[in-house]
Amino acid sequence: MKTLIVYAHEEPHSFNAAMKNLAVSCFEEQGHPVVVSDLYRMKFKAVADGEDFLERRDKSYLKRQQEEKAAMELGTLAHDIVIEQEKLKAADLVILQFPLWWFGLPAMLKGWVDRVMTMGFAYGGGKHYDQGGLKGRRAMLALTTGGPETSYSDTGINGPMDRILFPIQHGILYFCGMDVLPPFVAYGPAHLTGEQRLAELERYRRHLLAVDTLEPLPFHPLAHYDERGRLRADLT
Amino acid sequence: MKTLIVYAHEEPHSFNAAMKNLAVSCFEEQGHPVVVSDLYRMKFKAVADGEDFLERRDKSYLKRQQEEKAAMELGTLAHDIVIEQEKLKAADLVILQFPLWWFGLPAMLKGWVDRVMTMGFAYGGGKHYDQGGLKGRRAMLALTTGGPETSYSDTGINGPMDRILFPIQHGILYFCGMDVLPPFVAYGPAHLTGEQRLAELERYRRHLLAVDTLEPLPFHPLAHYDERGRLRADLT
Repeated sequence: MKTLIVYAHEEPHSFNAAMKNLAVSCFEEQGHPVVVSDLYRMKFKAVADGEDFLERRDKSYLKRQQEEKAAMELGTLAHDIVIEQEKLKAADLVILQFPLWWFGLPAMLKGWVDRVMTMGFAYGGGKHYDQGGLKGRRAMLALTTGGPETSYSDTGINGPMDRILFPIQHGILYFCGMDVLPPFVAYGPAHLTGEQRLAELERYRRHLLAVDTLEPLPFHPLAHYDERGRLRADLT
Repeated sequence: MKTLIVYAHEEPHSFNAAMKNLAVSCFEEQGHPVVVSDLYRMKFKAVADGEDFLERRDKSYLKRQQEEKAAMELGTLAHDIVIEQEKLKAADLVILQFPLWWFGLPAMLKGWVDRVMTMGFAYGGGKHYDQGGLKGRRAMLALTTGGPETSYSDTGINGPMDRILFPIQHGILYFCGMDVLPPFVAYGPAHLTGEQRLAELERYRRHLLAVDTLEPLPFHPLAHYDERGRLRADLT
């Protein structure tokens, strides 16, 4: 099993760094290779723009998806995007490791998604959700929050965690064809004692060791929808 | 009424650009001043990192929120962040204008949120949601999608639009204290004829002209929750 960890935290002493380091050693100890994209250290370009195409199909009007498709075919996609796509192709498991900022991905990681998940690679030609370009792979979110778990419960002030993660888990990971494993959420590590932080890391280690037994989140397959993207009447 | 439009699209011929231009002319014709933050043209720095602080409180361990709070007090926040905060302070209405990318904000706009909405400015000291730092202002999302409206309906393959926008409308705009007006969503403008695009812009113009009469989305106030962020038992 080959794992790609896409990691978006600048501080090497952070809890996110500790989680990333734990996952690397946990898998490597079992003989499973791990590749880490340390986006801050790579100074990854986070903003999707016209510079992502070495040649522009249409220089007068930037239509991103059409440029992506053309650049995939012509081999004119920016080199740093191609490198990340090669890492994804080689992976069986993809982990996004990040602090939940403003109830979503930090811009650095959102930009990795915006730029790397190109049309013609991650989706396109009617292939998305369970038919997406990264089909056959598993993906998992590993994140930290500022607030306590109660504030992310069904009656929590921030809204239920699965609702907050829906656009990422369903709209990004599953859209690209990956089976989405239950996320690992470390709630409020900044408010924990050293002992409690170690216990949280131990809980993460057990989650990682059980990764083969985790059931993917239950999302409808593409075939359940009509051509306008509505759930078929016999399934509602 | 002063409006700030934060605009995140690179292409001046795009439908997003047309929506932004329409909003500017619509408000200015009524004598209402408009300020536009054209993030791509400004080459806005989208990635939150240690460079955002002219002096670091703790050089050995980057804790972002603590650096933000200290930098607010000492006046050592990066100049481009301070400029955006001044625009927010002066605004009565804030519009985020963007293409929905991967069911969220483009990294450029997410980075604007990550960097500009600092602790001590947009929230902090127990002040968030209806008590947030930008209290008294209204905010509204104006966005375009790739897919048709049916695919964002209650039984739509992408999930209901209000569920997709929840982390942005509730988790960003409302968290900072702003009243969130119903969003304007232009579905799949790339698939429309020229005539249909003009009709969509006319629909947006009517939305903008009615902005004073729109009811904010109904979210619970902070006082409805206990100290652990759970809805008070008498309200569930």
